[in-house]
Amino acid sequence: MNFSPNAFGTRVQTKPVQQPSPMPYHRYQAFQPVDVPDRTWPTKKITQAPRWLSTDLRDGNQALIDPMTPARKRRMFDMLVKMGYKEIEIGFPSASQTDFDFVRQLIEDEAIPEDVHISVLTQAREDLIERTVQSLVGANKANVHLYNATAELFRRVVFGIDEAECIALAKRGTEMVMKYAEQNLGDVKFGYQYSPEIFTQTPTDYAVEVCNAVMDVWQPEADREIILNLPATVEMSTPNTYADQIEYFGRHIRNRDHVAISLHPHNDRGTAVAATELALMAGADRVEGCLFGHGERTGNVDLITLGMNLFSQGIDPMIDFSNIDEIRRTVEYCTGLPVHPRHPYAGDLVFTAFSGSHQDAIKKGLESLENHAMVQGKGVHEIAWEAPYLPIDPHDVGRTYEAVIRVNSQSGKGGMAYIMKADHKLDLPRRLQIEFSRVVQRATDATSHEISSEELWEIFRDEYIQPDGPLQVHGVKTQNNGVDTVDARVSMDGKEFDVHGEGNGPVSAYVDALSSFGHRGVRVLDYSEHAMASGGDAKAAAFIECEIGDGDDARIMWGVGIHENIITASLMAVNNAVNRAIR
Amino acid sequence: MNFSPNAFGTRVQTKPVQQPSPMPYHRYQAFQPVDVPDRTWPTKKITQAPRWLSTDLRDGNQALIDPMTPARKRRMFDMLVKMGYKEIEIGFPSASQTDFDFVRQLIEDEAIPEDVHISVLTQAREDLIERTVQSLVGANKANVHLYNATAELFRRVVFGIDEAECIALAKRGTEMVMKYAEQNLGDVKFGYQYSPEIFTQTPTDYAVEVCNAVMDVWQPEADREIILNLPATVEMSTPNTYADQIEYFGRHIRNRDHVAISLHPHNDRGTAVAATELALMAGADRVEGCLFGHGERTGNVDLITLGMNLFSQGIDPMIDFSNIDEIRRTVEYCTGLPVHPRHPYAGDLVFTAFSGSHQDAIKKGLESLENHAMVQGKGVHEIAWEAPYLPIDPHDVGRTYEAVIRVNSQSGKGGMAYIMKADHKLDLPRRLQIEFSRVVQRATDATSHEISSEELWEIFRDEYIQPDGPLQVHGVKTQNNGVDTVDARVSMDGKEFDVHGEGNGPVSAYVDALSSFGHRGVRVLDYSEHAMASGGDAKAAAFIECEIGDGDDARIMWGVGIHENIITASLMAVNNAVNRAIR
Repeated sequence: MNFSPNAFGTRVQTKPVQQPSPMPYHRYQAFQPVDVPDRTWPTKKITQAPRWLSTDLRDGNQALIDPMTPARKRRMFDMLVKMGYKEIEIGFPSASQTDFDFVRQLIEDEAIPEDVHISVLTQAREDLIERTVQSLVGANKANVHLYNATAELFRRVVFGIDEAECIALAKRGTEMVMKYAEQNLGDVKFGYQYSPEIFTQTPTDYAVEVCNAVMDVWQPEADREIILNLPATVEMSTPNTYADQIEYFGRHIRNRDHVAISLHPHNDRGTAVAATELALMAGADRVEGCLFGHGERTGNVDLITLGMNLFSQGIDPMIDFSNIDEIRRTVEYCTGLPVHPRHPYAGDLVFTAFSGSHQDAIKKGLESLENHAMVQGKGVHEIAWEAPYLPIDPHDVGRTYEAVIRVNSQSGKGGMAYIMKADHKLDLPRRLQIEFSRVVQRATDATSHEISSEELWEIFRDEYIQPDGPLQVHGVKTQNNGVDTVDARVSMDGKEFDVHGEGNGPVSAYVDALSSFGHRGVRVLDYSEHAMASGGDAKAAAFIECEIGDGDDARIMWGVGIHENIITASLMAVNNAVNRAIR
Repeated sequence: MNFSPNAFGTRVQTKPVQQPSPMPYHRYQAFQPVDVPDRTWPTKKITQAPRWLSTDLRDGNQALIDPMTPARKRRMFDMLVKMGYKEIEIGFPSASQTDFDFVRQLIEDEAIPEDVHISVLTQAREDLIERTVQSLVGANKANVHLYNATAELFRRVVFGIDEAECIALAKRGTEMVMKYAEQNLGDVKFGYQYSPEIFTQTPTDYAVEVCNAVMDVWQPEADREIILNLPATVEMSTPNTYADQIEYFGRHIRNRDHVAISLHPHNDRGTAVAATELALMAGADRVEGCLFGHGERTGNVDLITLGMNLFSQGIDPMIDFSNIDEIRRTVEYCTGLPVHPRHPYAGDLVFTAFSGSHQDAIKKGLESLENHAMVQGKGVHEIAWEAPYLPIDPHDVGRTYEAVIRVNSQSGKGGMAYIMKADHKLDLPRRLQIEFSRVVQRATDATSHEISSEELWEIFRDEYIQPDGPLQVHGVKTQNNGVDTVDARVSMDGKEFDVHGEGNGPVSAYVDALSSFGHRGVRVLDYSEHAMASGGDAKAAAFIECEIGDGDDARIMWGVGIHENIITASLMAVNNAVNRAIR
C-alpha cells in the first residue's frame, strides 16, 4: 500500500480535561507511613504458604447481620478443620455467653483435632482475662489473644491514656493472662498472641516499643514463641505502606527468631489481599483472615483468594480448595451473606467467557492442551496448565469452564435470560442461567442459526419442565405440626405410589418422601420461586438446584416447576431435576 | 503485683504444623516478571487523579448475563457524564450491530457533551477497522482503540504468528485506522489508542518494541498524543510485578512526552485496585476500568474504589461520588448484577458497626468531632475527618453511619433479623434490616433492657405496618392490557377516594394513582415479597423501599404490607412508606 503517515491530515484532538469534583476532599489528609528507603520487599518473592489463622468464628461472625447459631458455628468449624486450617480463633468468650458456651462445647465434645490450635480474643481487663482463660480449661492446644488500643487516635479520643499508660496496660494484661493460665490451664499446651490495635495507625516505632515491653513479660525463647499480630483493622493507604511497616517492624523487634509476625488486614480500600501479599514479601510469617473476607464493614482479608493465588503460582496453599462450590455454599449458609458472582476463583461468573473472541481463544488453548496431554499419554487435568484468559484449570477447584452464548446478540434483543424474563416471565437464578446457556449452546451448535424466542422456550421446557418425564406428582397434602409432612401421590414411568415424608419444609419433606421409594441421594442446594404475572391467580415458577447421587457420581441439576399452587410448583421442580438426572 | 514471669510453668505449645494439601499445585509455575532492581515506584506517592476512562459500555457490558438494552446503555452513559468521566469507551461497533447502532444513536442524538471523548474498540483487520471508523462519522471528539495479541501464548496457540508478523499486524492496523479516519472523519477531532494484548503476558521488552513500531506509523508529537494501553487482561502475579512492568515500559518507550501510558487491570487475583495504585506510582497517566468492576470473569478494576481511595487521602478524584447509593442503584439496574454488601465505600454494610467496642469507639470519636466543630463554629461535616473505624465520613457519599444493635445477643438467640424470620416469618431485605435496627435502638435506648420477641414484633408493626396510619387502601382492581392499570378505593385520614393510575406494573400504577390526589414524588427503589408460610392460603409479606419527596427533602423509607393477596400486600407497603414519611 502506498500510504504515507504524513499525509494524515485529520485534526487531532487536545487531551481531555477533567473537572474538579464537588467532593470535600480537603477534609482528608494523606497517610504518613514509616519511611523505609532501604526496603527490600519489592525484590522478594513468596515461595511458601504462611501460617494461616481463620477468624471466621470470631471477627467474621461478629459482623454478620444474623450471627451464626451454634449449629452453624459448628458446621463452619468442622469445614475449616477439613480444609486444613490448624489455627482457628473460635470466639470472644468474655464478650458473650454464646461465645463462651461455644468454646466449652467444642472442648467438651472433643471436636478439636489434636493438631489444631484454637485461640480466643480478650481485652486487657483482669475480669475479662480471667473469664477468657476459664473458657479454655480442658483444651489441648490453646492461645489467648490479647489486644489493647495503641493507635494515637484511640488513646486520645476513646481511652484518654498516654503512651506510658498504654504500655503498662499491655504488660499488665500479659501478666494477667500468664497468671490465670498458670492457675487454670496446667494441662493445656498454651500459647500467647498480642495485638497492638490498630497497628497501621500506630507509629511503627511505638508499636515496636509496646511489643518489646510485652515480650519482657512473656519472655519468648525456643519453643516458647509469641505471636505479634499487627492489625490493619482499618486499611489506611496503598498496600506498599503496610509492607514498609511490616519490614520495619521485623527489623527492629527483639527476639525475632521467637516471634511469629502475624498480619490481620482489613479491606477498606479493596487492597487487603495485595497488602497481605506484599507484607509476606516483607517478612511476615502468619496471616489472619476469613473465608470470602467477612468481618466488620468491608471485612477481613479473604483467605480463599490468598490461598488460591499461591496455588496459581505453583505453591502448595496447605489448604484444600478442591471443592470450592461446597466451601462457598457452606459459607453462604453459615453467614447468610452471598459470595459475589465475580469473586476470584469462586464467583458464579469467574470461569465463564462471554465474548466470542475470548471463547475462541480459550477453545484453541484447550485443544492445544489436549494435544499436549495426548502426546504425554496423560489426562488433560494432569499436565501443566496454560490457557488464554483462564489463570487456573477450573477442574482443580471442582468447577468447569463455561462459554455463555448469546441468543440474538446481533439483533439487539440482549441475552437469553432477558428473553426468558421478558417473553416467558421466568426470572432464572444466575447459576441456572449459566447451566441453561450450555443447553442452548448444544441445541444451537446443531442448527447453527440464531434461535427465536419460541425455540428458546421449547428448549427450556424440554430440558427443565419435561411434561412427559418419568417422575410426576399428581396430588399433594402438606401439614405443619412442628415438622412439615408431605403426603403425595406420585408416578414413576406411569406406575403410581402414595408416599409420605417429613422435613423442615415441604420441599425437604418431599425429598424425604422420594427416598421412601428409591430416590435417595437428592439434596436441595438452592431454591427460589416467583409469581409469573401480577394478580392473585398467577402461576408460580419454582427453581430448585439439587445434588443428585452420591460420591463421585453426584451431579448438580436444576429443575423447574410451574403451577398455580406454589407448593406443587416446587415439588414439580424437584421431580424435574430428578428426571433430568435419570435421562 | 509480686509476679515473676519465670514462675510461669504452664506447658507452652509447639508451633502449628500445616499439612500438604491434595491440590495439584505442581501444574502451575510462578510468573516471571521483568527484573527492575532499580525501581523507584515504592518511594513514590500518588498526588493527583489520573485520567479516567470508563469502559462500562464496552468491556463491562460484554460480560453481563443480560447485556444492557439501548435504554440502559443510555442511562449508564448519561450517569458517567454526570459523574465527570471525560473519556468513555462506548462499544465494539464492528463486533455487533447493537454496538454500532448505539454509537450512531449517541452521535445523532447529540448526547455527547463537547468535552467528552468517546472511543471504540477494534481488532486489527481492515474490514473491521473500516466499519469501526464509519461508526464515528459526525462525532466531535473520538478515539479508535486498536488491539492485537502480542502475548507469546496467544501468538503461538491462537494465531500462529511470530514476533515480526505480530509487529507487522500492529503497524498495518494503525495505518488502516489512519487511512479510514482520513477518508471518513475530516470533521472529527480524532485520537488513537493502541493495546498490546495481553501486556502482562508479553515480555516487556517486546511490548516496548511493538509500541515503538506503532508509533513509527502514528508519529506522536505535541498535541498529537498516542495512548498506549497496557492491559493486565489476566492478572498474573502480585501487584508489584505490574508496577515493575509499567516502570520499565515508561523508561524504555520512545516519545515518552507524547505518550499517555494507560492501565487496564483485571481482578483475577483480587488485587486489581492495588496493581493500579502501584502502577500509577510507577508513572502511568491513565486508568481504564468499570464502576464496581464489571467485565469478563472477575471483572475490570473498580473505578469507584480507586476514586474514593484518592478522596480518602485528600486528593480530588475529579469524579462526583456524592450520591453513591444512586450510582450503585443505577449500576445494579443497568448490569442486572448486585453490588456486594461489603464492597468498599458502597456496600450495604460498610458504614455499619456491629460490635459493641467498635460502636463505643465510634460514638466517642463522633462526639469529639462535634466538639471540634463547635469550637470552630462549623458543622461537623465541614471540618477535617477523623473517627475510629470509619476511614471517611459516610455523609460525604450521601450515606449515614449505622450502629447495628443486637437484640438478645447475650441470650444466644442471634440477631433481630433472625428473630423476625424465625418467630414472625418475615425475611427482611438487608437495607430494611439496617434501617429497622436503628428503630429498635431508639426503642431500646428508652427502656435499656433487652427486648423480647413479642416486643420486637410490636416495634416493627407500629413502625412499618401501621394498621391505623392515615393512608389506607380498601379495594383494588388491576388490569394489564399492554400497560398495567390500577383502580383503587383509598382513604386519607378517614376520607375516601377512588383513584386510577397506570404504570409498568401494579405498584408503579398505584404510585401513579396516588399522585392523582396529591401524593407526588413517590419513587419505588426496591421491592421484594415472600409467602409467610407454606401452603396456598398463606399470607404474603411485601417490602417496598421508596424515595418520598423531592430534592433536598427527599427521604428513603421502607414500608411493609401483609395480606392474603400479593398485590394488596404490595400496595399496603407503599401506603405504609408514605404514612411513615407523613408522620
